[in-house]
Amino acid sequence: MKTAGVIGAGNANTQLLELAEKVGRLLARNGFIVITGGLGGVMEAASRGVCAEGGITVGLLPTDSKADANPYVKIPIPTGLGEIRNALIVRASDILIAIGGQYGTLSEIALALKTGKKVIGLNTWHIPGIIKATSAEDAVDIALKLL
Amino acid sequence: MKTAGVIGAGNANTQLLELAEKVGRLLARNGFIVITGGLGGVMEAASRGVCAEGGITVGLLPTDSKADANPYVKIPIPTGLGEIRNALIVRASDILIAIGGQYGTLSEIALALKTGKKVIGLNTWHIPGIIKATSAEDAVDIALKLL
Amino acid sequence: MKTAGVIGAGNANTQLLELAEKVGRLLARNGFIVITGGLGGVMEAASRGVCAEGGITVGLLPTDSKADANPYVKIPIPTGLGEIRNALIVRASDILIAIGGQYGTLSEIALALKTGKKVIGLNTWHIPGIIKATSAEDAVDIALKLL
Amino acid sequence: MKTAGVIGAGNANTQLLELAEKVGRLLARNGFIVITGGLGGVMEAASRGVCAEGGITVGLLPTDSKADANPYVKIPIPTGLGEIRNALIVRASDILIAIGGQYGTLSEIALALKTGKKVIGLNTWHIPGIIKATSAEDAVDIALKLL
Repeated sequence: MKTAGVIGAGNANTQLLELAEKVGRLLARNGFIVITGGLGGVMEAASRGVCAEGGITVGLLPTDSKADANPYVKIPIPTGLGEIRNALIVRASDILIAIGGQYGTLSEIALALKTGKKVIGLNTWHIPGIIKATSAEDAVDIALKLL
Repeated sequence: MKTAGVIGAGNANTQLLELAEKVGRLLARNGFIVITGGLGGVMEAASRGVCAEGGITVGLLPTDSKADANPYVKIPIPTGLGEIRNALIVRASDILIAIGGQYGTLSEIALALKTGKKVIGLNTWHIPGIIKATSAEDAVDIALKLL
Repeated sequence: MKTAGVIGAGNANTQLLELAEKVGRLLARNGFIVITGGLGGVMEAASRGVCAEGGITVGLLPTDSKADANPYVKIPIPTGLGEIRNALIVRASDILIAIGGQYGTLSEIALALKTGKKVIGLNTWHIPGIIKATSAEDAVDIALKLL
Repeated sequence: MKTAGVIGAGNANTQLLELAEKVGRLLARNGFIVITGGLGGVMEAASRGVCAEGGITVGLLPTDSKADANPYVKIPIPTGLGEIRNALIVRASDILIAIGGQYGTLSEIALALKTGKKVIGLNTWHIPGIIKATSAEDAVDIALKLL
């Protein structure tokens, strides 16, 4: 089973949220299990897209309470690890798609690139090594080609 | 969604494996997501039981490779944390069922009891605080009553 | 540099605290860096003994605040990992001395034995694999012989 | 006791290594415990500087073996957590000084900024939020003023 991590900020504008939801839909249609940090913003929008297609979403939560997961997380994993859970998202994902994002997302991008995982970027940090995509479709196409 | 962790040794005798498979079946029939350490023995038998009923199994693996998961793990989470992943199994589970088991299982029992999680025991360590069950049916009945 | 982990409950009676302090003194005199969980009870008493001999104490704290360390921790490491820090105490120690203790200590004993580390016990859990010592002197003598 | 994390790549050029050693010397003279990832390059150079002044160095190693620490680590903490130990370096440090560095350093910078820790940068990544220093002296002066 292929897994894709969708990473991005808990607060994001409408454009990024629509992009995340579309990425989620496309990943689910292509058979990916989608892994996120389980909270709001990009994480929630991507999970909502996956659920709309009947896919599976895993939320690796920073807290130790399932109640903190957004309603589209089917498998909540409360880690109690705080930001350390970012590293687990990277480890659990075959590939990562970064959508917007702030420092937390940057830490995930850096950990992924450090450990040799591919990161596809949509309107995110400009860091050498990120593979830039131009649209949700483009991002998921790239992910499929890379795996 | 209710989650139950099934913990026990990677090497176990036939009697324990049959017990674990039965526990897995009953948990799935009662709507639990089943969380294990993702490897062989009790972990695999319980997951096989869950799959036989169409349920969902999560495997929190000690290594960083999905390939180490047994074939009945539907959601593999390679953590790369070694035995530290035992603590994540405890955190991610609403309740734990311990079947047989050696030192790794003992660490999970102790962490669960330390953090106030209920542990139901089937032929496992004799540690004060464990709720002893007499059969797979009894164990899952107790789990349902406690949640 | 040799490291010894001293594990035991945050609440302990006078007898155990005196034992822990004596163990700390003897470990320091024999050149061990002493690692504990950094909080009160056995952890604090052992650290006090080390400091009385001018030794070095490391406290691997469950919280993310150095302010939670007892006053005898020279090197506080706030991990923010909660009970998961127990596993780090085990990993960071060449050998463990368990003094009394409840479920947290039991988890450390189990993780140590699971990963092949020696555990010397003073009035602690009765778990196969623990090497029982009869006094603080005996415990530290055993530690020195085993390393 | 004040702690400073010195972060940077395991492979670095002579200029960065001299900078790291000087930072280590100045931190030790000003009473900081210095925390690094315990390996080579910037981590080793900074630790060497600290030791030259009789200070204390902690190495939070990614592996589970003390033997992987550079010779200037006085307190080796083998975590076995891989790159996840980067997050522990951030948590254990009151302030961070980044010297050069690649993806691992970037992950530490991002985690620090995400969790509100100050990061002082010397020839490192250009990330908003980093406080740029012009020399080793300047970096340590800034660290002293910020704490």
